[in-house]
Amino acid sequence: MIIKDSLDEVKKRENALSIIKDIVENNGRESLFDLTGLSGGFIATPSELSLLETYVGPAIFEDALQEVGIAHMGGEKVIPLNRTSSGILATILTLVKKDTNVVHYLAQLPAHPSIPRSCSLVGANYFETDVFEEFSIPENTSLVVITGSTMDHKVIDEEEFKKIIEMAHEKDIPVMVDDASGARLRTVVFNQARACDLGADIAITSTDKLMPGPRGGLMAGQADLINSIKVKVNQFGLEAQPPAVLAMVNGIKNFNADNLVNSFERKDELFNLLNQKFENFQKTPTGVMITPEGLALEINVSHNLSDNDLAFVFSLILLKNYGIITIPAVGMPGASATLRFDLSTQDAFNLNLKDLSLKIESSFEELLEVIPNEDECKKIIFNF
Amino acid sequence: MIIKDSLDEVKKRENALSIIKDIVENNGRESLFDLTGLSGGFIATPSELSLLETYVGPAIFEDALQEVGIAHMGGEKVIPLNRTSSGILATILTLVKKDTNVVHYLAQLPAHPSIPRSCSLVGANYFETDVFEEFSIPENTSLVVITGSTMDHKVIDEEEFKKIIEMAHEKDIPVMVDDASGARLRTVVFNQARACDLGADIAITSTDKLMPGPRGGLMAGQADLINSIKVKVNQFGLEAQPPAVLAMVNGIKNFNADNLVNSFERKDELFNLLNQKFENFQKTPTGVMITPEGLALEINVSHNLSDNDLAFVFSLILLKNYGIITIPAVGMPGASATLRFDLSTQDAFNLNLKDLSLKIESSFEELLEVIPNEDECKKIIFNF
Repeated sequence: MIIKDSLDEVKKRENALSIIKDIVENNGRESLFDLTGLSGGFIATPSELSLLETYVGPAIFEDALQEVGIAHMGGEKVIPLNRTSSGILATILTLVKKDTNVVHYLAQLPAHPSIPRSCSLVGANYFETDVFEEFSIPENTSLVVITGSTMDHKVIDEEEFKKIIEMAHEKDIPVMVDDASGARLRTVVFNQARACDLGADIAITSTDKLMPGPRGGLMAGQADLINSIKVKVNQFGLEAQPPAVLAMVNGIKNFNADNLVNSFERKDELFNLLNQKFENFQKTPTGVMITPEGLALEINVSHNLSDNDLAFVFSLILLKNYGIITIPAVGMPGASATLRFDLSTQDAFNLNLKDLSLKIESSFEELLEVIPNEDECKKIIFNF
Repeated sequence: MIIKDSLDEVKKRENALSIIKDIVENNGRESLFDLTGLSGGFIATPSELSLLETYVGPAIFEDALQEVGIAHMGGEKVIPLNRTSSGILATILTLVKKDTNVVHYLAQLPAHPSIPRSCSLVGANYFETDVFEEFSIPENTSLVVITGSTMDHKVIDEEEFKKIIEMAHEKDIPVMVDDASGARLRTVVFNQARACDLGADIAITSTDKLMPGPRGGLMAGQADLINSIKVKVNQFGLEAQPPAVLAMVNGIKNFNADNLVNSFERKDELFNLLNQKFENFQKTPTGVMITPEGLALEINVSHNLSDNDLAFVFSLILLKNYGIITIPAVGMPGASATLRFDLSTQDAFNLNLKDLSLKIESSFEELLEVIPNEDECKKIIFNF
């Protein structure tokens, strides 16, 4: 076993980071392919970056965001947030009083923890269900929450979506939609309407999910509601800061629905290509993955490495030879050693998948060559 | 009167923004002098911006922030926050329970509202005083708060600072220091020690105040406390995002104590230069200002403009002729029309003050020439 503890993981990560720095500095960012699926985007021109340094830059970007944000989300007004979770907190602080009820419907449990946590902070009672027939709105309910698409990309049925909004509005209860990835997944891939167009009073999306924007949240809805929520947002420091707002504007502008549809189709193509050579790759909602245990099963040469070690060596070979970034190479101590190849983010859109699968195969061949020699593997992982 | 309502203010502002865009695009950012005192910094190299687009960039900047952040603030560990207010919220969510007491000492009331607001959110009792003799720590106190320097730059006495920390620690109560501008003002201009070195358990500073960093907060303190607070920070989306973290690292690295001391001295120099020609400029903690009413008193030619109109025309002449940005030109509707010339931020550090005062005088001469002609003034304000 090579990676024995957190310290080893830190050293491994530092080696990966220095390889990445070298690639960026010597060959440019375009020689790097971040397929972790976890990278936000930060698109900005030199002239925009210059404006960012002035008092007025932020105001310009906020204005631009109103335009592109409303086009993307619907509603009358948008507000940029530090995170989707901060937007949920601000909404609940604004609309939900102590001892009232909040009911949440989503396509599949578990719910995102920020919703029950914010309810608990204000002392409200929180109920959730993923069974439509069991959903009801009790007396004394202050807010109805709908999740458009779950963390695992399970999407709500549009008819159920409409019915729940109707049920809430019959009782004059506002509806907040957590449309983190749904604002794109539902509309583009499943042809559903935007949450605000379905009658949601407030909808929030994550600007780094399935589009090339920064980590952050974008809330849209009725202007008067947005204005009340904005008060809490500013009081508690929950708003997105200017660099994020700039990157949101450009992230939305660069969002390409075809790319998203393609990434859903392209994962099948990549899976089929890899399946010709491997047996243990699996599909994810937006790409493919292989677990350390799955990787170990692919190997028929004798070695003394742990399953995780195999994944670490494999990911470092991919990084060093081809600039392909996967989580085992760069993950913090304790991160999963599963290799994910995510196709939903910027770096993957123009990748030739035949070429990618050949690079994965060739890196795997190199893995087979080096694993009998533990010292060689250590050198790859730690660079010493 | 030219500016009659909010719509006029919006048009005025749009004209100012397009002048600024022209200057940035045709002459470069270095031809613009943002003296509003409200602009944060966003310093980033192309290679850093490239890294920002990868999953690993943020981790690199967070590591770098530990190093420069601890050097700046003291303590064992730092955590970057979306705002100082969000750091205060997270600390109070972590340390303060319902029905306990929070006591706050500051050099001069009023306190920053984020502290009582966060206490009210968790249902704690909040007490504040700016009279040292009246400060006491009642039973059942969960947190002692000290403000290092107020919004108006009034600085706490260091002996009182130490005594309050001692009083709190005798009762095993943690101390949080709101050192928004104080972390630099107290240490650099008043030669006081860093809050953590004085025994504070937690200290928070604003990275855009008196240093060329982005809007955001930086919290330092005991590692175990920081770790507990970080849990709340991540749960409610209160952390600074990667672009801000990058700009914090560079803001701290580019913080120059001499510049800060100079700006405190330079405001006197600028005031004296302007005083030779004008009678109504006043000193601010970090620069000089003239109110619309003060400006009107300087004028001995006949005209039909309101005091605010005079300030708007003056600020647009300064912008158009010399690239000098002041708030009346770019402010949102309702913003004060007082012209502030702030010397504490990046654009002011290398300004020749004699040259600046001549530009202010020459713009004032142009103001005198145009104000008898209202159409000419409208053209300057609205560009039509």
